[in-house]
Amino acid sequence: MAGVLAALADPMRLRIVKSLLQQDDCMSCKEAAPCPDMAKSTLSNHFRILREAGLIETTKKGVEHRNVVREADINARFPRLLKTIVGCSE
Amino acid sequence: MAGVLAALADPMRLRIVKSLLQQDDCMSCKEAAPCPDMAKSTLSNHFRILREAGLIETTKKGVEHRNVVREADINARFPRLLKTIVGCSE
Repeated sequence: MAGVLAALADPMRLRIVKSLLQQDDCMSCKEAAPCPDMAKSTLSNHFRILREAGLIETTKKGVEHRNVVREADINARFPRLLKTIVGCSE
Repeated sequence: MAGVLAALADPMRLRIVKSLLQQDDCMSCKEAAPCPDMAKSTLSNHFRILREAGLIETTKKGVEHRNVVREADINARFPRLLKTIVGCSE
């Protein structure tokens, strides 16, 4: 769980996860970016940390990376954690 | 909330908070230490981070620092967050 908490402890990453959760569909890194002017490398780094923490899944579709929150997996391992953290940040 | 999540993202600090929550009374840093052989400076550092995140309150009683989790304050600001994180880590 340490990795999940550390990943979500960054406000930008939390915003990315919230954006992804609001969509039914996958999102590209750019679509889920918390700020439109965020450097591509910074954004990639945030997505990598989220992926390594097991919070998101990324699939490549053509030249684009499509991202989705691994909601079912996270909820199974850490009941209510994601919902509580997202709820507290609103 | 970022500070709270970052503070609890460390397994040792989470164990300290859990120890403190299990006690009705305050605890000294040594009593709440996650490992008996942890260096005093490391332990102090963990307590400082917890204090700065607003998770614990430390009062001095003689030569001892007495620590308690600011449960009511945390629960008021971040409903169910502490309980959910502690529950997920068991």
